Amino acid sequence: MTQRLDSYAELIVRVGANVQPGQTVYVTALVEHAPLARAIGRAGYAAGARFVDVRYADNHLRRSFIEHASEEDLTESPSWLMARTEALADRGALIMIAGDPEPELLADLDQTRVGRARPVEAMKRQLRAQNERAVNWTIAAFPTEGQAKQVFGEPDLERLWEAVAHSVRLDEPDPVESWRLHVERLRARCDQLNTAAFDAIRFTGPGTDLTVGLIAGSRWSGGGLSTVDGIQHVPNLPTEEVFNCPDSRRTDGVVRSTRPLSLGGTIVRDLEVRFEHGECVEVKASTGADAVRGQMEVDGFGKRLGEVALVDGESRVGQTGITFFDTLFDENATCHIAYGSAVTFGIDGLEGLTPEELRERGINVSSVHTDFMIGGPEVAVDGVTADGKSVPILREDVWQL
Amino acid sequence: MTQRLDSYAELIVRVGANVQPGQTVYVTALVEHAPLARAIGRAGYAAGARFVDVRYADNHLRRSFIEHASEEDLTESPSWLMARTEALADRGALIMIAGDPEPELLADLDQTRVGRARPVEAMKRQLRAQNERAVNWTIAAFPTEGQAKQVFGEPDLERLWEAVAHSVRLDEPDPVESWRLHVERLRARCDQLNTAAFDAIRFTGPGTDLTVGLIAGSRWSGGGLSTVDGIQHVPNLPTEEVFNCPDSRRTDGVVRSTRPLSLGGTIVRDLEVRFEHGECVEVKASTGADAVRGQMEVDGFGKRLGEVALVDGESRVGQTGITFFDTLFDENATCHIAYGSAVTFGIDGLEGLTPEELRERGINVSSVHTDFMIGGPEVAVDGVTADGKSVPILREDVWQL
Repeated sequence: MTQRLDSYAELIVRVGANVQPGQTVYVTALVEHAPLARAIGRAGYAAGARFVDVRYADNHLRRSFIEHASEEDLTESPSWLMARTEALADRGALIMIAGDPEPELLADLDQTRVGRARPVEAMKRQLRAQNERAVNWTIAAFPTEGQAKQVFGEPDLERLWEAVAHSVRLDEPDPVESWRLHVERLRARCDQLNTAAFDAIRFTGPGTDLTVGLIAGSRWSGGGLSTVDGIQHVPNLPTEEVFNCPDSRRTDGVVRSTRPLSLGGTIVRDLEVRFEHGECVEVKASTGADAVRGQMEVDGFGKRLGEVALVDGESRVGQTGITFFDTLFDENATCHIAYGSAVTFGIDGLEGLTPEELRERGINVSSVHTDFMIGGPEVAVDGVTADGKSVPILREDVWQL
Repeated sequence: MTQRLDSYAELIVRVGANVQPGQTVYVTALVEHAPLARAIGRAGYAAGARFVDVRYADNHLRRSFIEHASEEDLTESPSWLMARTEALADRGALIMIAGDPEPELLADLDQTRVGRARPVEAMKRQLRAQNERAVNWTIAAFPTEGQAKQVFGEPDLERLWEAVAHSVRLDEPDPVESWRLHVERLRARCDQLNTAAFDAIRFTGPGTDLTVGLIAGSRWSGGGLSTVDGIQHVPNLPTEEVFNCPDSRRTDGVVRSTRPLSLGGTIVRDLEVRFEHGECVEVKASTGADAVRGQMEVDGFGKRLGEVALVDGESRVGQTGITFFDTLFDENATCHIAYGSAVTFGIDGLEGLTPEELRERGINVSSVHTDFMIGGPEVAVDGVTADGKSVPILREDVWQL
């Protein structure tokens, strides 16, 4: 187990965040993630980190906070968290450990408050640092018994570990080399899409007919990013997606989610969302609809899209056939969209623009960024060219370009 | 167990820190303390706290840090920790959870580095806030299997819990009322000592002949403190001591520790220290001597005393007969002294003085404050009056005044 954790931590530190000698590594984790956080500490210092600074959060404390905090305090950012985020934004490395050991811990609370409870200013500052490519960052998951129970109906942690290890290529003889090849494949896919220069992406399937307009000239990203200092990093372990930035005014139609969505203590099931002129005008779900609505309403800009992403049936995550109840994995199983903050890695010339100026260009700015899954074999995906022609991208989960 | 934790958390919040409605409660804990931290969260919000802000530390990460950090970084305070400490100092409540689940985790490291590794500026700022009585604070312990194994030679956690519950009066029908009576008893003892107005305290016993000169006019404290805003709080759960501030220039002689001292991952055994004109000139121990030396040398002022405290045989902690390997408990079993920062609660007119001005008055200022135990039935304690007369205070652990 220590061996597996150490290999995993090394992958996270070397391939995911690509920690540089002398960097401070900011890690966010739950207390239940301590074994992985400790392994990341060891791997981080081995990679030459100056300081590995782990911030442990605790969803049980979050529960008490949501139960008792005033409406105003729900969204406040403590001064120390702002200071920590500023320090991170100054060329820090960032590792976020995902994986919820008790996915339904908050399910009985007021879901609007669950959705709103977040340190808005600190999250905005962090998202800005990520979008400005000031930090080399990654997200990776720590499997827990609670998640295994959610996934398999029994706490079969070993089975979950095997699925995770397969998804992140830890079961390869040389995981680092395997990642190099995988990253190349995703980048080639981006090149195809950038050459095609679609104006919009259209999803059609059961309960879904959604057209997502793209920002003109915005490039597709996938297989890793690079900071302004040229540090190559892989933001998500696993990653199977190529993604782009929607024009926040040009999404129309209806979309039905194809997988449950785990939303920090609440499971959203059978989500259906309708958009008009880029704005979400209707949210339905069999469970958790209020948590989605609460998030969408937190700062006035959560109702518009910030990301559209394509994943085909070759995805290792998809191939496991497992719903992980963890967006990091589930979004890499299939195509997805995100409401909230835009992913702007593929757009040039945004430096120094205010949030208002960004929004004028159709680039959404928000403290929220929530992905939900809309793809699968029954969902056809087409690229729509500027002159209205449709080009198949995915049919029955097979890449068509 | 949840019941016991909730009662304990309530005692910590209501009697220990005495959290006031609207206060932010800053909690420091190890990840292993999460069950108690969560209970404190619930009790804190129930007491009307605005926000219960738990900072989880992790001794395994601390281990990696000590192994790898540069000499300079070992003592650095991250900007976010300074910001958090400033916020705490602004009328916050502070709860520190003690109890080391792996008392010898750092025992094989360079003990000088173990001793030095601390965020000096942040600790100074916090100690200043405590000494200026700006915060209502308390320290309480969370028993763990690791500590039980250290204490009993086997991981008998239930037996340790019973000893802790007895020591903090959780086994009383009405713990809060029991504490009210106990606090009165300690305050009466302070009144006796203040009336006697001793110039120095002398300890004599096997390997010990130590005279600790006191600051003229400094009052004895015990049974709780009060903030500048008049919030009564009990800084240590348990507490059995009455204490005063030594004159940092007037301690002379030799002292042999009567209990092992757990020093954040290292056990110091058979400690013997010699003082000349207030300064420690020799440190001996069978294990851990370098950790003590490292602490004493961290900022140039760790070698002088900051506290002298008296505890008699009626101590509930002492009566358990257990060495807890946790200073919070062990210091309340018997008389002790501390090297490093002075406890100035009993001295008036210090507001606005610089560290240099404080030191000129014999009041030590340091980022260190480490108590070690020097009392017991074989150690006689006398008060020495200004004209050199000796007055017995303790004989065979029985209070004589």
